[in-house]
Amino acid sequence: MAMNEEIEKRNHRKLGQELELFTSMEEAPGMPFFLPKGMIIRNELEALWKNKHQKAGYQEIRTPIMMKQEMWEQSGHWDHYHENMYFSNVDNGQYAIKPMNCPGAVLIFNSKRRSYRELPIRLTELGLVHRHELSGSLNGLLRVRSFTQDDAHLFVMEDQIESEINNVLDLIDDVYSEFGFEYKIELSTCPEKYMGSAEIWEKAEHALESVLKKKGLTYQINPGDGAFYGPKIDFHILDSLGRSWQCGTVQLDFQMPEKFDCHYIGEDNKPHRPIIIHRAIYGSIERFMAILIEHFAGDFPFWLAPVQVKILPISDSHFSYAKEAKLQLESVGYRVEIDDRTEKIGLKIREAELQKIPYAIIVGDKEVERASVALRKRKEGNLGNMNISEVIYRFSEERDKR
Amino acid sequence: MAMNEEIEKRNHRKLGQELELFTSMEEAPGMPFFLPKGMIIRNELEALWKNKHQKAGYQEIRTPIMMKQEMWEQSGHWDHYHENMYFSNVDNGQYAIKPMNCPGAVLIFNSKRRSYRELPIRLTELGLVHRHELSGSLNGLLRVRSFTQDDAHLFVMEDQIESEINNVLDLIDDVYSEFGFEYKIELSTCPEKYMGSAEIWEKAEHALESVLKKKGLTYQINPGDGAFYGPKIDFHILDSLGRSWQCGTVQLDFQMPEKFDCHYIGEDNKPHRPIIIHRAIYGSIERFMAILIEHFAGDFPFWLAPVQVKILPISDSHFSYAKEAKLQLESVGYRVEIDDRTEKIGLKIREAELQKIPYAIIVGDKEVERASVALRKRKEGNLGNMNISEVIYRFSEERDKR
Repeated sequence: MAMNEEIEKRNHRKLGQELELFTSMEEAPGMPFFLPKGMIIRNELEALWKNKHQKAGYQEIRTPIMMKQEMWEQSGHWDHYHENMYFSNVDNGQYAIKPMNCPGAVLIFNSKRRSYRELPIRLTELGLVHRHELSGSLNGLLRVRSFTQDDAHLFVMEDQIESEINNVLDLIDDVYSEFGFEYKIELSTCPEKYMGSAEIWEKAEHALESVLKKKGLTYQINPGDGAFYGPKIDFHILDSLGRSWQCGTVQLDFQMPEKFDCHYIGEDNKPHRPIIIHRAIYGSIERFMAILIEHFAGDFPFWLAPVQVKILPISDSHFSYAKEAKLQLESVGYRVEIDDRTEKIGLKIREAELQKIPYAIIVGDKEVERASVALRKRKEGNLGNMNISEVIYRFSEERDKR
Repeated sequence: MAMNEEIEKRNHRKLGQELELFTSMEEAPGMPFFLPKGMIIRNELEALWKNKHQKAGYQEIRTPIMMKQEMWEQSGHWDHYHENMYFSNVDNGQYAIKPMNCPGAVLIFNSKRRSYRELPIRLTELGLVHRHELSGSLNGLLRVRSFTQDDAHLFVMEDQIESEINNVLDLIDDVYSEFGFEYKIELSTCPEKYMGSAEIWEKAEHALESVLKKKGLTYQINPGDGAFYGPKIDFHILDSLGRSWQCGTVQLDFQMPEKFDCHYIGEDNKPHRPIIIHRAIYGSIERFMAILIEHFAGDFPFWLAPVQVKILPISDSHFSYAKEAKLQLESVGYRVEIDDRTEKIGLKIREAELQKIPYAIIVGDKEVERASVALRKRKEGNLGNMNISEVIYRFSEERDKR
């Protein structure tokens, strides 16, 4: 198949529609609507993410999606970003709808006295942000106006920077490997428009590069592509067509703690300034889903598939047997549908394959008689006749394979 | 203790601060910030809710938080609700930030051709809504400007109304019983400002009352307190002080399907108008949390407690043993903290009790020697010396008790 055809076949907008994952509407351009099957994938991605972050010592928070404009002036977002922000008036004051989650995390850090013993403090937020994009540039889940960042802000002491960045790189590697993704690393340095002194920028760039070198990772330097508040390491995942997509990012920030006068009480009983590490792994859940749809061409691995098995009764008389099998599989946590239309079994099989459902279970007279089912795997065909506990055993093996 | 004192002791704003559950900030009045411990409770409430809805045949969706003003004019929210709505300008068009989730669910229902075979379609959304409230009326998590409704919209045929409302009443009862809540039921009828014909209103009111009667439930009639689009049944839970709080609601809506021209293809191959049942169980997750905090006076049941056990080493030499115990408990899913300060054990026990942590584990020389721990339950005192697998067994029994 020619490359263009292959790309078109994997188009996430087309597959998103065909597989009923998400949809776009003129009532809210660039702000996707998640359909039930897309929500299943989204929930699986969030659950995986939360689980790994909890084990890695992160604490989850949730901050408002709008805050007073003055605060965004203090944070520097107003100066550097206001053309892309949405605003709303409340009680005669102007509020900005958040384009980033950072200030919320900083306000929570500042909401109590912090001791050096608490550091590093790792605050995560699956934060819904809004950024204005021109309507002509919108593209399904890839380029949107509202999305959820899988954000985290780490408040660290200077001598914790390297070990924390090291941990973040390990976590990113761990998450990407769940999907089998290879990735490229880029180190982006001071842009033209920046906050802070050249000296601090140099220190920050040095710290990031030092961790990459010690880990023996290959990386490319991207001069001038850093955030306005600090240098960053970006992660570009490679999909099954060899295309690269920027997803993860790790950014060092000496500016925000100054702007918000963050401090912790040190061992010397005096206030000290922490450093902030901003980081995301998926980048945006919406964008990451778009990449997954294209990478797998909608043919999701078993654990991510919105419907994991479709039960296909051969005729109406097998419906109640099919329902029993469905209940048994659902009771151990699998996602099951029945095709209860009065259609030929050949057609039902073909349609289940078109919907890219990993397994089909066929039940007819023979299966009812033997108290068994006929299991069929997409792309592999018949796996034979077996009882439902054998099916459950195979599924649990496949689920753990992830 | 006098009633006023008891109420003050349970004040959720005060406890929210002391137990570090949430906080309010002047940067976003009425839009609470959830701290890590509050997020644990919130996540538990959402997980319980999602689990029960999945089993009850609901499908989860997620819709944008802002949509074009024209759509809100079509839905009737503009006419009946615009004083309480927030707006933002995008590409020279006015967008409203959603005060309710209904239109999003309707747009998803309308996004494809629906057959009578699919009905009832039960769409749920944990939807973030914003409603303007005067700043003087704001009150912690109880009265806020941004909150998450545990919403659902059921698209049903006329002859499915009673059975679906019956199922919803069962689900509400099931959820409230997880917290041990008793509740009162109110049926609210046609308000002064309403949409639609008097005839349809009568039909709707009759349908709701009929289910209540058939179930033999006690209810009170609240004349004129219905929503502008239809009558409703409200659920008022009773807290430990006997105060009642309106939480759940079930509303019948013959109007919205007209406004949005919803239809499904019937068995006769012709288009028919579905009826919408709106419903929420918690009402708002924020408000429900406020009620839980006051109901339990911060003394949450084991499964909801942000920290389930605090490990208290007697001296520094027991720290590494304490850490081992923590890892073992965490590996089976419990939430554990260590008090690793160099303080007297009596003080550590007192503080763990003040933080309302259900269990404390004390480790000293004796425990290290015997490869055991000393378990202590809040309000009950010492439970004796035991090994960690005995602790895990007790915890699993307590967790299942919910």
